[in-house]
Amino acid sequence: MTRFALTLEYDGRPFMGWQHQDHGPSVQQAVEDSIKKITGQTVRVFAAGRTDAGVHALAMRAHFDLDTRLTPFRLREGINAGLRPHPVAVLACDIVDDEWHARFACEGRRYLYKITNRRAPLTFDRGLSWQVAPDLDTDAMHHAAQLLIGQHDFTTFRSTHCQAQSPVKTLDSISVSRFGDEIEVEVAARSFLHHQVRSIVGCLKLVGTGTWTKTDLKNALAAKDRNALGFNAPPDGLYFVEALYPPVSEAE
Amino acid sequence: MTRFALTLEYDGRPFMGWQHQDHGPSVQQAVEDSIKKITGQTVRVFAAGRTDAGVHALAMRAHFDLDTRLTPFRLREGINAGLRPHPVAVLACDIVDDEWHARFACEGRRYLYKITNRRAPLTFDRGLSWQVAPDLDTDAMHHAAQLLIGQHDFTTFRSTHCQAQSPVKTLDSISVSRFGDEIEVEVAARSFLHHQVRSIVGCLKLVGTGTWTKTDLKNALAAKDRNALGFNAPPDGLYFVEALYPPVSEAE
Repeated sequence: MTRFALTLEYDGRPFMGWQHQDHGPSVQQAVEDSIKKITGQTVRVFAAGRTDAGVHALAMRAHFDLDTRLTPFRLREGINAGLRPHPVAVLACDIVDDEWHARFACEGRRYLYKITNRRAPLTFDRGLSWQVAPDLDTDAMHHAAQLLIGQHDFTTFRSTHCQAQSPVKTLDSISVSRFGDEIEVEVAARSFLHHQVRSIVGCLKLVGTGTWTKTDLKNALAAKDRNALGFNAPPDGLYFVEALYPPVSEAE
Repeated sequence: MTRFALTLEYDGRPFMGWQHQDHGPSVQQAVEDSIKKITGQTVRVFAAGRTDAGVHALAMRAHFDLDTRLTPFRLREGINAGLRPHPVAVLACDIVDDEWHARFACEGRRYLYKITNRRAPLTFDRGLSWQVAPDLDTDAMHHAAQLLIGQHDFTTFRSTHCQAQSPVKTLDSISVSRFGDEIEVEVAARSFLHHQVRSIVGCLKLVGTGTWTKTDLKNALAAKDRNALGFNAPPDGLYFVEALYPPVSEAE
């Protein structure tokens, strides 16, 4: 058996999320089905993060074990062919050590949240960005966001369905940048709670419109209470950007 | 009657093009239908350029005459509401002089052509960019493209269905730039022939792969013969970017 690591890009719009679901298509199922189509083998694919319904990925990492003579290049081309017409693409396919695990070896995750700050409805970016009509003060959003950095009990920013053992997480960085009408919120941490990024962005939007002050955000964090949450942003604007791993020794 | 000028953004994928068509939906029809929905009036909307099926616009300009007391702001909001679910958005709506004409007053047009240079299939950009797998030499493309600048008989780069009176056009500028996997071809001219940008991009792709030299491109232009065309690029990557007009005096 050989362990292969994939780098995946996907448009989350048609999917119920990464993970297998009884009630709709999942990215995991699409990738596993494609591998089965070209190799005849049933594999289980593990990802660095289990994105929600409608959430996208620019470079999700995943792995699976396969008994094959296909080169990584051929395997990549085959999986991509088998994935059609799903909006999922294998950007890279590499052989990794048998111990390498996309989820458990991951030491850092980065997400991007896109907001389009304009009155006009979205065209190209429908389902790919969150349209917010009122003018957002991105400087205020950025400054307020800095108080979330570090280790905190993020219960306020955690879905009631979150399965993590602890609500305590360490946010490494968060930034809010404006490029014309486009606003990008970038966050990095070792790991995140369920809905953590969307909950943070929803509250930052309230800061951006002036509905909340920085103190309101601070109080919401200190409350450690889901009921103190201002707003949960929609999945549309959320992208899994990158998974970081310790340097690996070459597979033999 | 008041003349209104619109700035429109649209995703061309579901449309047969700008202009009314018997056999499918058009952007023009979508906009006119929306204006009728909110005002009850049947108007004809004229655009700066008549984009083809599957071609997009970032800021198309258009105008129409309407007997209304609606402010431009209310009219914009109303047209946008009426346009749903079409991927068309009115970015701006202004009152202009009765003599102002989106098409005939237009003094310059800019187009953008997007190429995604990678092996992996497209996800987010399907229908919004042209995927080209072989590595493209964008420096060679850019340098070759410069020979097209100026006044030429562009018969080689003209659709056989082109209705322009003359095949002679003046290309003001053309540039080929790379941003990672993304390649952008930007062109500007007073006006273009039917399929001119797509025909130019198709030939530049041949230069990028090394199939054509700069001399081959020069010979194709000199041939003034549609049969000398190397390749017509698909509509997917083409965007109408901007229409330029002489400075206008304020409407009274």
